Amino acid sequence: MGRVILEHAILPVVPGREAEFESAFAEARAIIAGMPGFVDLTLSRSIETPNEYLLLVHWERLEDHDPGFRGSPEYARWRELLHGFYEPFPVVEHFREVA
Amino acid sequence: MGRVILEHAILPVVPGREAEFESAFAEARAIIAGMPGFVDLTLSRSIETPNEYLLLVHWERLEDHDPGFRGSPEYARWRELLHGFYEPFPVVEHFREVA
Repeated sequence: MGRVILEHAILPVVPGREAEFESAFAEARAIIAGMPGFVDLTLSRSIETPNEYLLLVHWERLEDHDPGFRGSPEYARWRELLHGFYEPFPVVEHFREVA
Repeated sequence: MGRVILEHAILPVVPGREAEFESAFAEARAIIAGMPGFVDLTLSRSIETPNEYLLLVHWERLEDHDPGFRGSPEYARWRELLHGFYEPFPVVEHFREVA
């Protein structure tokens, strides 16, 4: 696990659309989970700011996320399901676990 | 695991002090790991912004982190070891995993 890549994004969902987002995310999860290099994913909801979600995805290699997933036909469907819920659009960063 | 609390902080370390911070963190890790309600911890380093670290700590309950850990004598030592590395001071948030 020490070498895997952690994709990190805080997802600001338009207030009032949280339940709809969670339902769309349940469908989108299956898309990303089938991609090469996908390891695991968690979606968590902020306690202090309930319209904010934390997306954490482990990938085997940075390239599995980008250009792998982001350049795939599956990403078009992911985007279609989810991107309309975000305001503003999230910043995605990648991290590597410190030994 | 679905009910545990995830403490989340992006830690901006003064550039050039990353190795010293990682060494101090290795000592600080033992302090937090001994606290009641502590589940696990990961520290990861940003690929895009190498002086930024992502701290993720799972707690059994929100109260185990605050006031539990934050109100403890052990927190004084944690603060002494780590807080001098941060600029600006990090924002800490709590999340709960979406089922």
